[in-house]
Amino acid sequence: MTVDVYALHAQVSAWLRASRKNILKLMAEPLYVATKSNRNDLVTNVDKQNQVFLTNQIKAAYPEAHIEGEEGTADKIDRLDGLVFFVDPIDGTMNFVKQQAHFAVMIGVYQDGKPVYGALMNVMRNEIIAGGPALPARLNDALLPAVPDLDLADGLLGVNGPMHAKNRLHVGDIAMASSGARMSGSAGMEFMEIALGHQIGYISYLKPWDVAPGMAIVSGMGVVVTRPDGQAIDLLQPGLVVAATPKAHAEILKQMQAD
Amino acid sequence: MTVDVYALHAQVSAWLRASRKNILKLMAEPLYVATKSNRNDLVTNVDKQNQVFLTNQIKAAYPEAHIEGEEGTADKIDRLDGLVFFVDPIDGTMNFVKQQAHFAVMIGVYQDGKPVYGALMNVMRNEIIAGGPALPARLNDALLPAVPDLDLADGLLGVNGPMHAKNRLHVGDIAMASSGARMSGSAGMEFMEIALGHQIGYISYLKPWDVAPGMAIVSGMGVVVTRPDGQAIDLLQPGLVVAATPKAHAEILKQMQAD
Repeated sequence: MTVDVYALHAQVSAWLRASRKNILKLMAEPLYVATKSNRNDLVTNVDKQNQVFLTNQIKAAYPEAHIEGEEGTADKIDRLDGLVFFVDPIDGTMNFVKQQAHFAVMIGVYQDGKPVYGALMNVMRNEIIAGGPALPARLNDALLPAVPDLDLADGLLGVNGPMHAKNRLHVGDIAMASSGARMSGSAGMEFMEIALGHQIGYISYLKPWDVAPGMAIVSGMGVVVTRPDGQAIDLLQPGLVVAATPKAHAEILKQMQAD
Repeated sequence: MTVDVYALHAQVSAWLRASRKNILKLMAEPLYVATKSNRNDLVTNVDKQNQVFLTNQIKAAYPEAHIEGEEGTADKIDRLDGLVFFVDPIDGTMNFVKQQAHFAVMIGVYQDGKPVYGALMNVMRNEIIAGGPALPARLNDALLPAVPDLDLADGLLGVNGPMHAKNRLHVGDIAMASSGARMSGSAGMEFMEIALGHQIGYISYLKPWDVAPGMAIVSGMGVVVTRPDGQAIDLLQPGLVVAATPKAHAEILKQMQAD
């Protein structure tokens, strides 16, 4: 099937706005927090409820779609053919728990492994950034310009905390060669900053639902997103991600592959 | 003299709101950017103009005060007796230049070296956090609760980029022992997050005008601010700063002083 990306955008925007209302309401009530793979990998009742909500919306509108979501209730997939929705009901759960801010709801849509559409909602700021190959990127209703192709030295770089602290793949040195490292704790916030031209890039270890929505948006804005060896992102498994302007991306990969 | 801190707060708030208007107007015009001590230490025409504006306001209202500001036009001081205003006309100039967001205007007022008052304005969000020993901390007109005394493991920690990347004074390891590192590029943003209870602390190398305003606010909220050896902050010179909840502060100092 061919997806009408403008219709999809209208639908997803409505789901995100409804998600936001639900989340704000739940934030006024006690929060139930549990850990997953480690003490800093959290999930809350809000993540779970919002995943159920979004999954139900997607199933009703696109019954043939596969859904891959962070919080387990989604269909498990082992292939990317057909229409696939990647859902992160709360991206930046640690920020959500500790800050009640700086978290996102994210949806990415791919057809046969190719990006169709992505949407990132900053819940507390009531901002949606959306776009894709056939939908010019926008912040709410305002179109966003292409991301300028700056050198690594001329822009701020979002980095993963442990990679930066341990200089894994030279990420600490790479950040020192930029205008400065930034660390927000949310892949969604990082991709938003890239789309806004606030950052030249982002380096992290991401799950499919962390990268799919943002990648669909910024790929259409002149930003390159690959693995550190230059290979395409495999959306079936977690892995390292380098998203950056073409010039900065080339410099980052060169430094990552040194010795 | 004894300062009426409520009158001071009304005055400073008005100056910050006027600064904000000037800055937003100047942001619509071409920006002039120069480097200072290194390629990532920036100053713009907006920093300079806002420092002149704030200095003039302070001089008119408090002619006896000494002023220490980031951008050179201020009086040089080599002592802290009497009334001293610390002024940072744009804190986070790199963010201002690259992001047009995530920067602050900051004023700290000290009497004989003791904190009287601090105010931090997030210009793009139109938010002022202010407070001091005799003025309960507030976000705009809403009073802020005391910062809960969390352990290092239970909160997010703002860190200086190079210290984190180089594990200087074990800052990389300390961040790994927290709930996560965050890096915003603005001391003002970091102190705001602490005052809001979003972060348990912040570790960086700061100039007097970077630390004085935030320290005046959070010291009154149960947060400890010292050098890594536990000594009081000397506001006459730049240096390392550890601001954190009492429990996290003790853990951080212990780790910093190890081997």
